[in-house]
Amino acid sequence: MSKTRVVIALGGNALQQNGEVTAEAQKKVASQIGEIIAKLSTRYEIIVAHGNGPQVGNILVHEEAASTSNAPAMPLETAVAMSQGQIGYWLSQAIDNAFARRRQTKKVVSVVTQVVVDRNDPAFRWPTKPIGEFYTAEQAVKLTKTRGWEMREDSGRGYRRVVPSPKPIDIIERKAIVSLVQSGAIVIAVGGGGIPVTRTKVLKTLKGVDAVIDKDLAAEKLAELVKADIFVSVTGVPNAYLNFGKPNQIALGMLTPTEVFEHVKAGHFGVGSMLPKIQAVAGFASKKRIGIITSADNLELALKRRSGTIVQG
Amino acid sequence: MSKTRVVIALGGNALQQNGEVTAEAQKKVASQIGEIIAKLSTRYEIIVAHGNGPQVGNILVHEEAASTSNAPAMPLETAVAMSQGQIGYWLSQAIDNAFARRRQTKKVVSVVTQVVVDRNDPAFRWPTKPIGEFYTAEQAVKLTKTRGWEMREDSGRGYRRVVPSPKPIDIIERKAIVSLVQSGAIVIAVGGGGIPVTRTKVLKTLKGVDAVIDKDLAAEKLAELVKADIFVSVTGVPNAYLNFGKPNQIALGMLTPTEVFEHVKAGHFGVGSMLPKIQAVAGFASKKRIGIITSADNLELALKRRSGTIVQG
Repeated sequence: MSKTRVVIALGGNALQQNGEVTAEAQKKVASQIGEIIAKLSTRYEIIVAHGNGPQVGNILVHEEAASTSNAPAMPLETAVAMSQGQIGYWLSQAIDNAFARRRQTKKVVSVVTQVVVDRNDPAFRWPTKPIGEFYTAEQAVKLTKTRGWEMREDSGRGYRRVVPSPKPIDIIERKAIVSLVQSGAIVIAVGGGGIPVTRTKVLKTLKGVDAVIDKDLAAEKLAELVKADIFVSVTGVPNAYLNFGKPNQIALGMLTPTEVFEHVKAGHFGVGSMLPKIQAVAGFASKKRIGIITSADNLELALKRRSGTIVQG
Repeated sequence: MSKTRVVIALGGNALQQNGEVTAEAQKKVASQIGEIIAKLSTRYEIIVAHGNGPQVGNILVHEEAASTSNAPAMPLETAVAMSQGQIGYWLSQAIDNAFARRRQTKKVVSVVTQVVVDRNDPAFRWPTKPIGEFYTAEQAVKLTKTRGWEMREDSGRGYRRVVPSPKPIDIIERKAIVSLVQSGAIVIAVGGGGIPVTRTKVLKTLKGVDAVIDKDLAAEKLAELVKADIFVSVTGVPNAYLNFGKPNQIALGMLTPTEVFEHVKAGHFGVGSMLPKIQAVAGFASKKRIGIITSADNLELALKRRSGTIVQG
């Protein structure tokens, strides 16, 4: 009998819970996640997706700080690939070590993942996602001229580059990921929403594009493509809520995709925080499967449907 | 009948043949390599290993240029992981595109790879490998104090950090790599010689360590562990030579590991250039297999033993 296949999407800040950003601090947090994943793997086939917001932000800050002809700054798409190496390494080592503490070994592998987006996605006409450093107005003008960057004023703190956030439509490494899972591996993939690539029209060759794909949408797309049974978006809170942060806040337990979409219409979920998660989860659930929102601590119970927000189609 | 399994190690400068170091220029060179690999894959099972010298050097330059408490510089071991994401992405996309041009698709996957070294390797007592930026004498003293770096004067051009270059003894992801190859995938692995990790004594948990593993030795170790039939070290020249660069230069064709070791003793191969390659190749061949040194252009002929330096045990 085959195990239940689960795609788990970890929040972009999952490795920086305590606000510490050194490699050592992030590895320490990763090690707690490693313990949870190792424990779950006795019962589930697991693919871990993860965000990269703070990490790729810092890579870009460093790349831009000293861009010379000998050491030119890498473009965003390559920086995403670098963050996949970085975070993928931390997570796979953390999971390896959780098994080592159990005197077990298990295949754990991080896969560099390219995610296809549509060149005609409307997001390319309206870049919305701020990334990297803050700049002065003068610097912003210059960067638009020299680099072609679209710059936008960010909440009174200066100017930042904004990039498109197009929808994921395919995942290049999906078959390799399935082969790995079938061989018994725990796989880490689509880090940071994946390296965004477009396909040329005729030959269908791939080309990296400077954009950021929403991590929950990319993870949900992966869950679909690998025919996962359950898709979980792990966040800082144990549930999705109605009236979040208000006195009449209500934790959502079991509900249907249709109910979720009604709550979405009523404006219950924060844009850029709970909204993309609950949409991804409900989208997945609407294909007659199970979507979950919960915290890392509640993950085990939520997978047994005894905790968290469970959306079932 | 199963295909001949080949591990191909690409030189650290393989993506910068023309001295251009932008992402675009390196991707262009990668695309030529992609064509070669795609063509070979009809006949061979292929695992590609690669160096990362210039790339990880630039990552370190950038990381150190703007190391702040909000965006602290990543340590060398994590920088190696970042370079695996970067180069792994470029190579896998290049190979994907070579298949697309043939109207084919094939599983191509880059694996973040940890390589185990021995904490008691004598290399840790005598760091020899210079990495990253040049510093003044004063900066060097300060870096030793604040970061614990071992600094060394480098050929009159200033001071550089030196790190250990220990021998690879195991590869954590070896089984996942074999599963992928068996499933028909072309795999890119042990980038930059792998992320160096040591094992703790009792629990055998892994810990990253700031070191650089020789790319040819790591690729050879992988070739051994995955039971490859052929190990190829690809370099800028079509052969290994006796009296290299002298009027009496002789290209080496077919020879035995014993003959190689005699030439090594006679001092024919450049330390830090041909020596590690020919040693890795002869070491592999001495296990009753085939080791090859050749250039990318000669790869196809060399695999048929019609070109290159072929060491056969």
